[in-house]
Amino acid sequence: MTAFHTLRLTKPDGRQLSLYSRAPLDASLQAPSPFQEPLRPNPHLRWHPLRGEWIAYAAHRQDRTFLPPPEYNPLAPMRDEANPTEVPSGQWDVAVFDNRFPALSLQAAQAPDLIVDTAPATGHCEVVVFTQDAGSSLGALPLSHIELLLKVWADRTVQLGRLDEIAYVLPFENRGREVGVTLHHPHGQIYAYPSVPPVPERMQQQAQSYFETNGQGLLADLIQLELDEGTRIIYRGPDAVAFVPACARYPYEVWVATIEPVARFDGLSDAQRVDLARALKTVLLKYEGLWHRPFPYLMAWYQAPTDGLDHPESHLHAQFYPPYRTPDKLKYLAGTELGAGWFAMDALPEDKARELQAVNVNLDEGG
Amino acid sequence: MTAFHTLRLTKPDGRQLSLYSRAPLDASLQAPSPFQEPLRPNPHLRWHPLRGEWIAYAAHRQDRTFLPPPEYNPLAPMRDEANPTEVPSGQWDVAVFDNRFPALSLQAAQAPDLIVDTAPATGHCEVVVFTQDAGSSLGALPLSHIELLLKVWADRTVQLGRLDEIAYVLPFENRGREVGVTLHHPHGQIYAYPSVPPVPERMQQQAQSYFETNGQGLLADLIQLELDEGTRIIYRGPDAVAFVPACARYPYEVWVATIEPVARFDGLSDAQRVDLARALKTVLLKYEGLWHRPFPYLMAWYQAPTDGLDHPESHLHAQFYPPYRTPDKLKYLAGTELGAGWFAMDALPEDKARELQAVNVNLDEGG
Repeated sequence: MTAFHTLRLTKPDGRQLSLYSRAPLDASLQAPSPFQEPLRPNPHLRWHPLRGEWIAYAAHRQDRTFLPPPEYNPLAPMRDEANPTEVPSGQWDVAVFDNRFPALSLQAAQAPDLIVDTAPATGHCEVVVFTQDAGSSLGALPLSHIELLLKVWADRTVQLGRLDEIAYVLPFENRGREVGVTLHHPHGQIYAYPSVPPVPERMQQQAQSYFETNGQGLLADLIQLELDEGTRIIYRGPDAVAFVPACARYPYEVWVATIEPVARFDGLSDAQRVDLARALKTVLLKYEGLWHRPFPYLMAWYQAPTDGLDHPESHLHAQFYPPYRTPDKLKYLAGTELGAGWFAMDALPEDKARELQAVNVNLDEGG
Repeated sequence: MTAFHTLRLTKPDGRQLSLYSRAPLDASLQAPSPFQEPLRPNPHLRWHPLRGEWIAYAAHRQDRTFLPPPEYNPLAPMRDEANPTEVPSGQWDVAVFDNRFPALSLQAAQAPDLIVDTAPATGHCEVVVFTQDAGSSLGALPLSHIELLLKVWADRTVQLGRLDEIAYVLPFENRGREVGVTLHHPHGQIYAYPSVPPVPERMQQQAQSYFETNGQGLLADLIQLELDEGTRIIYRGPDAVAFVPACARYPYEVWVATIEPVARFDGLSDAQRVDLARALKTVLLKYEGLWHRPFPYLMAWYQAPTDGLDHPESHLHAQFYPPYRTPDKLKYLAGTELGAGWFAMDALPEDKARELQAVNVNLDEGG
């Protein structure tokens, strides 16, 4: 079982930094910051009456005075006192710090008076640095490092979820220029929302209604059907599974989950975490091996709301949405997808699963 | 008032073509087709149990045997018998024909047996050629031509809406390479769905619940508030309006609507249609003038379901979603937007409205 050490620090501008490591951490490590002035973000929410959802406005994100030279990497361990980065040098595996330009903030205090309902954009946005190595990637990390990351997501879910202001914690990774990422150092983000956002809310409703009718988990039952049929399975372990779902909305969409339902990251057993890391690494290496080049995607991790309830209907899992449908063609979301919310696919999930199944991977890579 | 002439033809491969014109049409016009074999599309739907929505799969769309030379434009009037296009030469203003590679089809008959619910992907997909002029654009067309297009959308809504298989008709335009368009001839599409899709369904629910509580239209009341406040108005006429909504989710998002609620295109009065064309052309010319270059967008037209009911809560309007947030930066939909359904904006609608308000336009352009 992977050891878990953590050190919680405060940056000169008041933001929090948490370091996580498989090995004991040096308690004398300091938290640097490229910014010295305290952060005073004041994002606000506006209600979209036609769609019935909140939109976050963070005009301060435009005011970034900080324009790093292209060779400067703010997510790399700090080497030079004159150019502070976001993370210290020294031994650590994963770092989590408060986003300097958050779309949601616990400090949000005011909202303008408008013709639609408004509210302070309460919430919290964090950056998760996956590794010190700028040239690595999530899938290239050793299994024990990925297991640590699963513990980090659990720790963040617990820390943020215990705040009254937070209703839902979503870890995600936007990977690749194609999905708008400009910093190539391996990292993800965590958004902690003041209410359950529309997509997880809809998924909760579906899962809850299924659970009430069937007394079992919707995703757990679907996973059992996927395992029994077997044609779209990408990874099958004792406790975890990865597959192209029969109802994929993106050409290389993959879901990664425990086989038995677990409501939140902090509910994972050691055996489940170990196998979930294997499933996750398998998918990432297959993506990378498919066209022998970095494979862009959006990875979103869904779990139960952090309302203190048990949520037996919830089932922790990741959904990957890759933007490519062929090596040189992007799937654009256009009229029917964005306008109607009705996805149209040219590719069958069975065919895309076969392509991914054919990629051989070695889980001990990077180990 | 713009005259309205139409001619309904059948292509050699069995697909329908409707020609529309302000001037009388030559009844001897023939419908060409780049394809001679009859169309046998058989798309199917799969139920996404976690999201509670249908996904359309059209594997035949991959089988396009037809690869035109780059200079060949299938939407241009046919000049050469040896290279048939989709539309004839001769006098007409707007052409509508059945998509050869539809994601939804009235001919869909079978669906595979899978671990999720499936159904034939009943429905209909059409291409709407806005003009014969490949180098023009929707906004450059004369007002009377745009009025005709509004009548075309009404005619298509009526024709498709009277079919039992069709529950909702959505005209839209994907414009620009940035949203995935490869054919630059000015054109839009119409999707006719077998059930009300998730986005309009949600909007119907919101509008219905508001109407039940207030006895008035949700969008009609919001428009009145926008008009009273005035800061985000882009066009204000006697019967129509265009504005950046206070709750915009995209930086240059604009809505175009009648001031009084109209449920569907076919409910527009002549005066409303004339003013709606002015509002629409104003927005398009302002977009074009903003950076003095073609401005990409997704334009979606929302109306009431075609269930034969009155829908006093519905309010016909267009929503424009442009992909750019600055002249050289795209707004990428990533973790929080696609993963959570919670949009985050750097730009305030008030600022973007000011930019569009500052662009001078001449509505008689192209007239």
